[in-house]
Amino acid sequence: MTSDTLYEHPLNEQVRVYLRLEQLLLQISQSESFTESGHSTLFFKSIFDLMEILEQVQVKADLAKDLEKQRAKLQTWLDVPAVDKDQLMALLSESRQFQQTLLQAPRLGQKLREDKFLSSIRQRFSIPGGTCSFDLPALHHWLNLPLAHCQADAIEWQSSLKPLSNALSFWLRLTRGGSAMQSLTVKNGFLQQDVEGASLLRIKISPDYNAFPLISGHKSRFAIRFMPFDESQNVADNMSLSLAVC
Amino acid sequence: MTSDTLYEHPLNEQVRVYLRLEQLLLQISQSESFTESGHSTLFFKSIFDLMEILEQVQVKADLAKDLEKQRAKLQTWLDVPAVDKDQLMALLSESRQFQQTLLQAPRLGQKLREDKFLSSIRQRFSIPGGTCSFDLPALHHWLNLPLAHCQADAIEWQSSLKPLSNALSFWLRLTRGGSAMQSLTVKNGFLQQDVEGASLLRIKISPDYNAFPLISGHKSRFAIRFMPFDESQNVADNMSLSLAVC
Repeated sequence: MTSDTLYEHPLNEQVRVYLRLEQLLLQISQSESFTESGHSTLFFKSIFDLMEILEQVQVKADLAKDLEKQRAKLQTWLDVPAVDKDQLMALLSESRQFQQTLLQAPRLGQKLREDKFLSSIRQRFSIPGGTCSFDLPALHHWLNLPLAHCQADAIEWQSSLKPLSNALSFWLRLTRGGSAMQSLTVKNGFLQQDVEGASLLRIKISPDYNAFPLISGHKSRFAIRFMPFDESQNVADNMSLSLAVC
Repeated sequence: MTSDTLYEHPLNEQVRVYLRLEQLLLQISQSESFTESGHSTLFFKSIFDLMEILEQVQVKADLAKDLEKQRAKLQTWLDVPAVDKDQLMALLSESRQFQQTLLQAPRLGQKLREDKFLSSIRQRFSIPGGTCSFDLPALHHWLNLPLAHCQADAIEWQSSLKPLSNALSFWLRLTRGGSAMQSLTVKNGFLQQDVEGASLLRIKISPDYNAFPLISGHKSRFAIRFMPFDESQNVADNMSLSLAVC
């Protein structure tokens, strides 16, 4: 038996950016050891993609605002009798702390932009196959330094991203955890629903249906159309899936 | 003791492309197993970079011509008494075979361009962080298919590149093998030489000098200036290195 595939879909522009940043931060942490031959390409490509997003979007202000909105929601639970108030208070305090650290941090990505080595190699990464030793002799030299040196540099570069990654993980963890998965059956590969103030859709479906979802939507409505992965096939009339509207 | 770092520098435009293609083909083969979490990003990025180069440059005609030139050089060795003629004849025949297979192959990259799945995911790869499940649900579905399925697809995609990779490896192997490394001392971090009909420079130098080479040149002349990796330092007055002009 294969395990279900999880699809996530953002219902606003901020969450779209958060999910991209989360993916890039994950790729960075997956490749920061430089122990596999492909790690360096993935590491630097992810760092440069991240820098590009941080240059285009005011993530800091958006995320701080979203943490505040999330706290407002959490606070309404304080009046519910069965709720573990100690745990809730701890979460609220954690959220405030992450928000404060985020707001007090220097401009996101600034330290990476000011790094001479990163700046010197960034441009070539957009050339197809542009990471050869003749394109980037400085990178080639760096890659042949002792592994511990490369790993220390990688940790240093990432340290400036900690306020972002901590706040982001916290917000996403609570957002995802805030809604339980509901089982439902999709008929003829199509589903639409009205919702209220949603920011993220999460769908789990078996890959055995050999179909993937095309999703459109915003905070108050979404539509999902399943497409057959193999164009010569149709999607099943009835498909079981789990859905969470967060 | 650290091992020497090898820098290669092309002395014409064709070899520049060959080295890029070789690097991308290497990255593809390093990630084709999809057993590590970063493999898929590296695999598809390398495939798409490769396709872009093949769309811009007439690699097939260039490489066929270069194989022919290489054979002409090899043939002059047939008159040298001490040479193993059987081995030389075998190489010449191998070269002819690779050239023929290359010339008879369909337009390079055509099969990849015609692949519906690859075409459907290619564009998003240029968006920073654009490989999330909401960007590319079809890719996300594919990645969750059984590993053997993904690996079989990867082998299938690469099969159309075999005539290119075989001919390219052969030409590069013989070009690199055609000139032995010579030891020399570089004074004040600068070296220039006149050469004859060269196509590739190869330099081996210890990373302990903490310097990397900036190289410029063409078939009849080249200049190498070593730059300190740490800008606050100077390069050593005398540096030992090995150099091959191929």
